[in-house]
Amino acid sequence: MHAYEIQAGFGLDKLVRVERPDPVPGPMQVRVRVKATSLNSRDLMMVEGRYNPRQKLPLIPNSDAAGVVDAVGPGVTRVKSGDRVMGLFSQAWSAGEPNRAAQVSTLGGPLDGALADTVLLHEDGAVPTPAYLSDEEAATLPCAAVTAWSALVTHGALKAGDTVLLQGTGGVSIFALQIARMTGARIIITSSRDDKLARARSLGAHETINYVTTPDWDKAARALTGGMGVDHVVEVGGAGTFEKSLRAVRPGGTVSVIGVLSGGAGAVPLTSILMQNLRVQGIFVGHRQGFEALNRAFTQHQVRPVVDRVFAFDEARAAFEHLKSGAHFGKVVIRVV
Amino acid sequence: MHAYEIQAGFGLDKLVRVERPDPVPGPMQVRVRVKATSLNSRDLMMVEGRYNPRQKLPLIPNSDAAGVVDAVGPGVTRVKSGDRVMGLFSQAWSAGEPNRAAQVSTLGGPLDGALADTVLLHEDGAVPTPAYLSDEEAATLPCAAVTAWSALVTHGALKAGDTVLLQGTGGVSIFALQIARMTGARIIITSSRDDKLARARSLGAHETINYVTTPDWDKAARALTGGMGVDHVVEVGGAGTFEKSLRAVRPGGTVSVIGVLSGGAGAVPLTSILMQNLRVQGIFVGHRQGFEALNRAFTQHQVRPVVDRVFAFDEARAAFEHLKSGAHFGKVVIRVV
Amino acid sequence: MHAYEIQAGFGLDKLVRVERPDPVPGPMQVRVRVKATSLNSRDLMMVEGRYNPRQKLPLIPNSDAAGVVDAVGPGVTRVKSGDRVMGLFSQAWSAGEPNRAAQVSTLGGPLDGALADTVLLHEDGAVPTPAYLSDEEAATLPCAAVTAWSALVTHGALKAGDTVLLQGTGGVSIFALQIARMTGARIIITSSRDDKLARARSLGAHETINYVTTPDWDKAARALTGGMGVDHVVEVGGAGTFEKSLRAVRPGGTVSVIGVLSGGAGAVPLTSILMQNLRVQGIFVGHRQGFEALNRAFTQHQVRPVVDRVFAFDEARAAFEHLKSGAHFGKVVIRVV
Amino acid sequence: MHAYEIQAGFGLDKLVRVERPDPVPGPMQVRVRVKATSLNSRDLMMVEGRYNPRQKLPLIPNSDAAGVVDAVGPGVTRVKSGDRVMGLFSQAWSAGEPNRAAQVSTLGGPLDGALADTVLLHEDGAVPTPAYLSDEEAATLPCAAVTAWSALVTHGALKAGDTVLLQGTGGVSIFALQIARMTGARIIITSSRDDKLARARSLGAHETINYVTTPDWDKAARALTGGMGVDHVVEVGGAGTFEKSLRAVRPGGTVSVIGVLSGGAGAVPLTSILMQNLRVQGIFVGHRQGFEALNRAFTQHQVRPVVDRVFAFDEARAAFEHLKSGAHFGKVVIRVV
Repeated sequence: MHAYEIQAGFGLDKLVRVERPDPVPGPMQVRVRVKATSLNSRDLMMVEGRYNPRQKLPLIPNSDAAGVVDAVGPGVTRVKSGDRVMGLFSQAWSAGEPNRAAQVSTLGGPLDGALADTVLLHEDGAVPTPAYLSDEEAATLPCAAVTAWSALVTHGALKAGDTVLLQGTGGVSIFALQIARMTGARIIITSSRDDKLARARSLGAHETINYVTTPDWDKAARALTGGMGVDHVVEVGGAGTFEKSLRAVRPGGTVSVIGVLSGGAGAVPLTSILMQNLRVQGIFVGHRQGFEALNRAFTQHQVRPVVDRVFAFDEARAAFEHLKSGAHFGKVVIRVV
Repeated sequence: MHAYEIQAGFGLDKLVRVERPDPVPGPMQVRVRVKATSLNSRDLMMVEGRYNPRQKLPLIPNSDAAGVVDAVGPGVTRVKSGDRVMGLFSQAWSAGEPNRAAQVSTLGGPLDGALADTVLLHEDGAVPTPAYLSDEEAATLPCAAVTAWSALVTHGALKAGDTVLLQGTGGVSIFALQIARMTGARIIITSSRDDKLARARSLGAHETINYVTTPDWDKAARALTGGMGVDHVVEVGGAGTFEKSLRAVRPGGTVSVIGVLSGGAGAVPLTSILMQNLRVQGIFVGHRQGFEALNRAFTQHQVRPVVDRVFAFDEARAAFEHLKSGAHFGKVVIRVV
Repeated sequence: MHAYEIQAGFGLDKLVRVERPDPVPGPMQVRVRVKATSLNSRDLMMVEGRYNPRQKLPLIPNSDAAGVVDAVGPGVTRVKSGDRVMGLFSQAWSAGEPNRAAQVSTLGGPLDGALADTVLLHEDGAVPTPAYLSDEEAATLPCAAVTAWSALVTHGALKAGDTVLLQGTGGVSIFALQIARMTGARIIITSSRDDKLARARSLGAHETINYVTTPDWDKAARALTGGMGVDHVVEVGGAGTFEKSLRAVRPGGTVSVIGVLSGGAGAVPLTSILMQNLRVQGIFVGHRQGFEALNRAFTQHQVRPVVDRVFAFDEARAAFEHLKSGAHFGKVVIRVV
Repeated sequence: MHAYEIQAGFGLDKLVRVERPDPVPGPMQVRVRVKATSLNSRDLMMVEGRYNPRQKLPLIPNSDAAGVVDAVGPGVTRVKSGDRVMGLFSQAWSAGEPNRAAQVSTLGGPLDGALADTVLLHEDGAVPTPAYLSDEEAATLPCAAVTAWSALVTHGALKAGDTVLLQGTGGVSIFALQIARMTGARIIITSSRDDKLARARSLGAHETINYVTTPDWDKAARALTGGMGVDHVVEVGGAGTFEKSLRAVRPGGTVSVIGVLSGGAGAVPLTSILMQNLRVQGIFVGHRQGFEALNRAFTQHQVRPVVDRVFAFDEARAAFEHLKSGAHFGKVVIRVV
C-alpha cells in the first residue's frame, strides 16, 4: 500500500511517502481501498506536532476516509467487499456517552489514518456511503459534518426558528450552515471576506458579518436578534473568539466548542457563564448513531458537501498548505486513487 | 419597616440601618414579614460593589428570605395571610428556560432584598415553606440549595452510582452534598481543613481531600475513580480551580459553574473541553418548579440545612465578616425578628 | 359584549346568542376584543357534551382567540391596549411540566372562551400575534399549531431526516406538516381523499397514502421507510387508528396522542409498546414558552396557516357543522367582528 | 455441554435435557460456563409458546446468565478467560436508540439462552460481574434489574422526592424498589399479600397497598400523594391494571410498560393519556451502557438482589412452576453447576 507517514519528527516537510505491505483484516475488521480523504485542522496540528507532541511515530495522518471495502476479516457481517464506506472517526464509539475507548480509537492518531490508499477499519467503524455522494464528497463527512451535527443536533437540539451564529467558512462552519438550514434555524455567519460571506448567503445564511470591518461582531449578532442574543454559537476560533461568543449568546444559550484555531487557552469570563446560565459544550466529533442520522438527513435533502478544492495524492503537502492559508471555503480534499 | 440599605456607596461599612414606610402590596404581590435571611457570596459581592458596580442605590441587599405573609394585594390566590413562605430568587422565573425577565427580577439587586423585616414578593415568587423547617433553616434554601439542585438535578440529571466532586464546605457545596447523598451518588469533597472534612464525612461524604496537603486534588479525585474521572464537578472556586476541575472530570462529564470565589476570569483550556467532550454549565440559581421539587425531596428525607451560625439583625455586618472569613461550614443566617 | 353560550344543555342546537355586560379586567388581566376564533374538535365535543358532561353551564365555548387588547387591569405590564394578541389555551401554564392549575385554566371550558367579541385573559395568557399574520390566521394557532409543536418539537425533538406519519388533513395534521417541513423531516400523510392528498403534497408532504384504497396504511408507511418504521406518528384518530400507528413506528419511536376522533378507548396492544420500546406521549396542547418558540419559527419561515373557510359570527352553528362533516382541510375559522 | 431445549413443541412438559457438543467461540465471541440463570416471565412465556409462537426450535431458553469465561474467540479484547461475566440481554445493543439488530440478538430466543452450562456471548454482550455479588445474585440482573433501571433512570429520570408506584413483588418490581430507594424516591407498592407488603416495607417501601382488600388501589395511591397523583408507575400487570395505572399518575407523569402479566391487550383510555399529558414508555430491557451504570450504582450501595429461591439444574421445571404460581418474592434462580 501507498501512504504518507509522519516519520522522523513533526512538520509538513517531514511528511514522507512510503510503501507498506498490504494489511490483512483481523476479526471484525475490514480493509478499505481509500478513494479520497479530506483535511481537518486536527490533521494539520497532528502533522505539525501541535495536537499531540507525544504521538508515537511513524503515523499515517488524516482522520477522514471514503473508499471501497476490498477484504473483510473473520466474523464481519455489517459490510462486504465492494461496499462504499466512510471511516468513523472514533472507531469504538457506537452511541451514547463517550469513554476512554472512544478517545483512543481515533483515526489519524493514535490509529493510522487515511492519507494512504488503504486503511483498516472495525466493521462498526465503517459507515455506508450515501449513494448520491461522490467519494470526494463523502470524504468530507466523518469529522467536519459529524462534528457540526453533534454540536447542533445531538447536543444542541436545534429547532426551527432558533438563531445560530457561525464563525468563518471552514469545513465545520459550512456543514453547520447546511445542517442549520435543513433544520429551519436562522443563520448568522462571520468571515473576514465579503466574497465568502456572499457565497455563504447563497448557501442559505440569513445574515452575514465581516469581522474585519465589524470587529464587534458579537454586538452585531446580538443586535440582529433584537438584543436577545443568539441561541447557539458554534465556536471554532478558541481563545481569540470565545469571550465574544459568550457575549453574543442569550441567557440559557449554548456555545459549542469545536475548534481552537486561534489558541487553546485564554482568559474565560466564568462570571458570564454563570450569570447567563450558559452551556459550553465541548464536541469531540461524534458517534456512529449520529453519523447515520446525519446521512439520513443529508440524503433526504440531497445536501452537497462544499468541496473547496481537490488535490492529487502527490500534492498532499500543498493541500495542507492550502488549508493552513485559510483561503479555503468548505473542505479541502485529496483524491487518493 | 426596618431594613439595611447600601446607600451612599459600596462597602460593608456603608451598610446602614434605615426605617422605611411599610410597603403596600400591589396586584399579585404579597407582603412578607421576614423572620430570617441567609448570606450568599453574591450578597457580599453586592454590598462591596463587586457584583454590579452600576447597581442603583439605595438597595436593600440579600436574596434569601423566609417569613410569614401578612398582607396580599389584589388578585392574589396562591398564598394568604399567615402562610409561611420563602422568596424565589428570580421572582419571574417559573420554569423552563431563563430569559431577560428572569434575570432582572432577582431579590437583593436589582429588586430590594431581604435584609429587612419586610419584603414584597410576587405571589408566584413566594414558595411555601416546608412545615418541618424552622425559619432560619428555610432562609438558607432559596439561593444555595436551589443552585445545588439546579446543578445536580435539573441540569445534571445526577443518578445513583455517579461520582460528584464538591469544592469546599460553603453553603452550596454542603447542599450539594445533601442532594447528592439523597440521590445515591458517591461524594468526594475538598477543604483546607481536616475538621471540616470530618464533618462533611459525618454528613455522608464518601471521600475527602485536603487541598492544602494534597494540592493536586484533581489527580487525587481522579485516582479515587480508578482513573476514569468524576461524573460531575460543582465548581465554586472560579478561575483558581477551574482548570483542575476540568482535569478531574471524565470524558463526557459535566462541570457546573456556580461560583467564582477565587476570581471570575482566568485562563481556560478550551482544548480540554473539546477533547474530553465536556459540558460546562453555568447555574444562575433556578426556577420555581425546581425549588418546589427540592422542597418535596427535602421533606421526604427530612433534610436539615446546615446552619453554621445565626446572627441577630443588629449584627448584620458581623455576619458578613464571618462569611468573608471563610470560617463557616454551611450557611450563615441572620435572624431578623 | 356579544357571545354564544351553551346554556340550557348540550348540543349544537342549544348554542344561543346572548348579550353580557362588558367584563372589567381584574389584576393582571387584559380584556381582548376578539377578531376571530377557530374551531377544534375539543370545541365541538364541548358543545355536544361529549368532552365534559359535567361542565358547568352557561359556558362560552371555543379555545382559540385572536384579537386586540382594549383594557388592562391593575399590575399588567406585559401587554398594553392596542396590542394584537392570541389567547394561551392553558392560561396558567408558562413552561415546564403541566400541573393541576394548568389543566383547570383552559379557555372554552372551564373558563369562558372565545366565541364572543370579548374575552378576559391573564396577561401571561396573552401571547403577541406575529405581525405578518391576519387575525383569522392567528386564531388558528393557540390549540392546533401549539399541539403540533408540542408533539413534534417539545416532546418529540424531531430532527432533519426523521420520518413522520400524519393522519388526515385536519388542523393539527396540517400544522404538523408545516412544522415537520420547516424542521427538515420527511412527511408521510394519509387521507380518504386524493384531492386532499394532492393539496398536502403541494404543502410539502413527501409521500401520501389514501387509507380508503390502502386500508393497510401502516404497512404502506413502513414500506416507505424500507421496512424500518417511521420515527414519529401524530395520532389524531384515537381508538380506530392507534393499533395501526403502533405497527407503523420503528423500535424506540414515538406516537403522539393528540386526538381521539374515532373514539377515546379501545384495545391497545401493550405488548407492542413494550417489545418495540415505544413511547406514547399524550399532548394536552402546550405551554407559553412553546407557543413563543412556535411563533418565532413561523415568523422566520413566514408560514401561512391553512384556513379552510371563514364563517361569519352569525354562522357559528354552520361552522361547527362544517367541522363535523370532516370536509375541511386545515382550520375552520369564525370571523367575530 | 448440558442444556435444556424446547424441542418438539411448546409447554413446560416439552422442556427436555440434552447434550450438545461444546461450542467454539467465533470472532469476538466468548464462551461462558454458566453458573446460574434466573427466570423471567418472558422465559416462561417462551417455553409455553405464548411469547413467540413462531420461534424456531430447538431453542435453549432463558435470558439471564452469570458465569465464567473459559474460552475466547479471535479478536476478543474486552474480557479474558477466568473473568466473571453476565450476559447482556440484547447482545447487539451498546447504547442509544434500539434498532432491529438489538431486537433480534436477544438471549433465550431467538438466540440460544442460558438454561445450559455453556453459552456463547459476543464480547460486547459480556458484562463484568460486580465482585461483591454471588453468581446466583448476578444471574438476576440482566433482564429484571436492567429493565427496572431503564424504566426509572434511563427513560424515567427519577429524582429524589418523586413518588413511584410499583405493582406486586416480582423480580422487576423489587429491583425497581431497590433502585427507587437508592435514588431517594418515595415508594408505594401493591401486593395481594400482607406478608409480602411487610417484606417490601423492610426493603424500604414507604407505603403499601393490598390490592385485594383495597381494589381501588389507584385511588389509594393518589390519596397518598395528596390527590396529585404519582410521578411514575412501573406497569407490570398489562391489560388488567393499565387503566388504573393511568388514573394513579399525575399530569405529565410516566407509566413504564414493562410487563403484561394479566394480558397484552385491553381497552386503553387514550383520552386520559391525552388530557393528562401522560407518557407511556415501553421498556424492552436495556442497553449495555445502562447495565454498566446499574452495576456502578449497585456496587456503590452494595445492593443485594432479592433471591426468592434457588433451584438445582435438575429442577428446572419445578422452578418454572414456582414462578408461574406467583408465590415468589423477588427472583427465582436456577443453580446450573
